[in-house]
Amino acid sequence: MGFRVAIVGATGAVGSEMLKILEERDFPVDRLLPLASPRSAGKQLRFRGEPVTVEALGSSLPKDLDLALFAASKDIAQQYARATAAQGTLVVDNSRAFRLDPDVPLIVPEVNPEAAAGHSGIIANPNCSTIAFVVAIAPLHRLAGLERATIATYQAVSGAGNPGLRELEAQTRAWAHDQAAPEPSAFPHPILFNLIPRIDTIGALGYTGEEWKMVHESRKILNHPEARIAVTCVRVPVLRSHSLAIFAELARPLGVAEACQALAAADGVQLVQEPAAEPYPTPLQAADTDTVYVGRVRRDPSHPRGLALWAVMDQLRKGAASNAVQIAELVLCGSRHGPASS
Amino acid sequence: MGFRVAIVGATGAVGSEMLKILEERDFPVDRLLPLASPRSAGKQLRFRGEPVTVEALGSSLPKDLDLALFAASKDIAQQYARATAAQGTLVVDNSRAFRLDPDVPLIVPEVNPEAAAGHSGIIANPNCSTIAFVVAIAPLHRLAGLERATIATYQAVSGAGNPGLRELEAQTRAWAHDQAAPEPSAFPHPILFNLIPRIDTIGALGYTGEEWKMVHESRKILNHPEARIAVTCVRVPVLRSHSLAIFAELARPLGVAEACQALAAADGVQLVQEPAAEPYPTPLQAADTDTVYVGRVRRDPSHPRGLALWAVMDQLRKGAASNAVQIAELVLCGSRHGPASS
Repeated sequence: MGFRVAIVGATGAVGSEMLKILEERDFPVDRLLPLASPRSAGKQLRFRGEPVTVEALGSSLPKDLDLALFAASKDIAQQYARATAAQGTLVVDNSRAFRLDPDVPLIVPEVNPEAAAGHSGIIANPNCSTIAFVVAIAPLHRLAGLERATIATYQAVSGAGNPGLRELEAQTRAWAHDQAAPEPSAFPHPILFNLIPRIDTIGALGYTGEEWKMVHESRKILNHPEARIAVTCVRVPVLRSHSLAIFAELARPLGVAEACQALAAADGVQLVQEPAAEPYPTPLQAADTDTVYVGRVRRDPSHPRGLALWAVMDQLRKGAASNAVQIAELVLCGSRHGPASS
Repeated sequence: MGFRVAIVGATGAVGSEMLKILEERDFPVDRLLPLASPRSAGKQLRFRGEPVTVEALGSSLPKDLDLALFAASKDIAQQYARATAAQGTLVVDNSRAFRLDPDVPLIVPEVNPEAAAGHSGIIANPNCSTIAFVVAIAPLHRLAGLERATIATYQAVSGAGNPGLRELEAQTRAWAHDQAAPEPSAFPHPILFNLIPRIDTIGALGYTGEEWKMVHESRKILNHPEARIAVTCVRVPVLRSHSLAIFAELARPLGVAEACQALAAADGVQLVQEPAAEPYPTPLQAADTDTVYVGRVRRDPSHPRGLALWAVMDQLRKGAASNAVQIAELVLCGSRHGPASS
């Protein structure tokens, strides 16, 4: 027996990835209901070789669902999630609507699966860069206590969904064909051959929403409210993998060998380190995987208990869709990583 | 009366930029001698509307030169620079050959012009990312003392010269035309839609040569051997501007307003900060300028005396060619910024 599953926002970049991942991971689906805005209703998607038709999201979700994966806006989540959970459906929400709600668990299954136990119908899926950070830092935090981290991100255009992907692709084609690119709309500036050091709006203390998400969500997931974290989030012309340059300060000094051993043994992490000829992962290598790749692990010579590292993760998969499906596996199947995961 | 000027490596990415900058800044040139490897000899370049012919670099440089701008390898610099200086020619060398030599000044004219006074014929031009860092941090260091910085760089392909530029362009065209790109040769991986967190070879403590350059050269330029600096250098698919995400820790707390005031007043810096709608510079905006643009200046909430900032600079110009010409202006003309600079 499987589950009746809805995907809210099934035609978006994350939603369509969820469909693929449910299939790939052999998630026990009895019935799949792809929901989207009225203008996408009637579209045909494929699931396990069969066509499925996108339906318009109505005033409420069907009552007989076991699972609703929300890959939509904060507003949609706020409008539908509580009522859906009240019907007995497990909601896994990828928006920021509930992430910092003290009554809603915020889960990365490799890091804090125990926090899912107390859920009351909604579980929040963290911000993508936050997932990469906590998966990479948790093994070191467990060993030596994270005191502080400064992080610079290199975030793919997929973080802005299909419009972000299409915009970089269109600018690339225009450049190669010596044509003027259309006016940027997904981003405030051209992104081809460029960088944009502002993701989300700028708020408190001059930090963006994206930067504060990484601070507050990491503290919640690591159950470490005193962790001192500062972030600069930067959009880069990469399609779908986020990267992070992390400088971490630990409560006790941790050798590189010990750190690498902990990372190599950690769930969801692949260490790419010496003796590899190129001892680091790249965004292209991480694309289409569910792994957080970590490399360039080294002592930070500017701090007595510092470590520097480089982490890369597919933003659409582990940064969003796969993590959401893993949460569903954890709660509905009692499995931390699902049958198809290594 | 002007100067007799040679450019060694005149056909490279930096060398050809030097030619342009001598012209733009109206540097007093009486005779220009472009030198390059034998395979570039005979090439025609243009200077002030006139053709000039590239000559092959022989066993020594002509004796009657006033200035030799070296935009070539470390090996070429080691082979020719001392003998050229001994002939009475001022050598400004863009390679790493002499940068850490205690007898050779390492100069960024906006930061440490006084250090040029003691030169004995050779002045070293710093590493490009180092220039962006010291120009941005010097005004804050003067006010409040730099104790520590962690830096993540976003470095353009021009840092690998014309081969780097051509490789990104070729990969972009191939992608847009649905063709296979040629095997990467300037970089160890494809760079289009990718990032490569290794620039130069990996050495002591797991840091690359590029990362150590930023540490040691910054200390020398800032005349601050105790500055604690850690860097992750990353190649990004940007054509010609380097960017830096900097987290600085100062000896005394510095407010954002005070920091911005110092940056706005600093030579060679343009502050792009609130109330600008997009309060940050981007690499495309910095391209073809001689300015270090600084934005996103904000308190670092993870450190009591921390500041975060974002700096962007054209790598070929201020990161290499313009800084070299400015050094020549400083030493030969007694001018810190040359006639054409603002």
